[in-house]
Amino acid sequence: MSQYFKHHVFFCCNQRQPPDSCCNNQGASELQAYAKSRISALGLKGKGNIRINKAGCLDRCDDGPVLVVYPDGVWYTYVDQADIDEIISEHLQHGRIVERLKI
Amino acid sequence: MSQYFKHHVFFCCNQRQPPDSCCNNQGASELQAYAKSRISALGLKGKGNIRINKAGCLDRCDDGPVLVVYPDGVWYTYVDQADIDEIISEHLQHGRIVERLKI
Repeated sequence: MSQYFKHHVFFCCNQRQPPDSCCNNQGASELQAYAKSRISALGLKGKGNIRINKAGCLDRCDDGPVLVVYPDGVWYTYVDQADIDEIISEHLQHGRIVERLKI
Repeated sequence: MSQYFKHHVFFCCNQRQPPDSCCNNQGASELQAYAKSRISALGLKGKGNIRINKAGCLDRCDDGPVLVVYPDGVWYTYVDQADIDEIISEHLQHGRIVERLKI
């Protein structure tokens, strides 16, 4: 079946109160905004292409921060902007899974 | 590839200010909460099974309110609890696409 978005990316941006850990205390919202602007700058945004979304808790807190790429169903963790750049250039642009960040 | 969640459902819960239309002005958050509690009550929640999430704007405002079921990549609109019940019982429990709500 043809997909509305080729890659639809959801960042867990859930915010919990300390001492509970959560993706949003590890830069999730900032890096989601970065990814969104980067995809836009690359001209890859929109129907038939790529969408970058925020989501509520994806229930993989122990592996956080996490994002998931659908319909592929590939989950990643990440630390910084360089990790997001690699996921974008490798997976989203070229379809190559980034094994070192995959969870 | 095996999927972490068999069905991962994202409700667009974006909130815009009037007069802009948005899914959240059409009951999205309330029906997402209903779907989540229903899946839990049915014992279908969790890894290897079903996850119901909120998401930011899914960029299909003209068709809203919308939700998407991944990895299937099937998009639905809905009006009320009965529509959500049908999506749960037909698609999520039995893998049958609800054509009348599909967008």
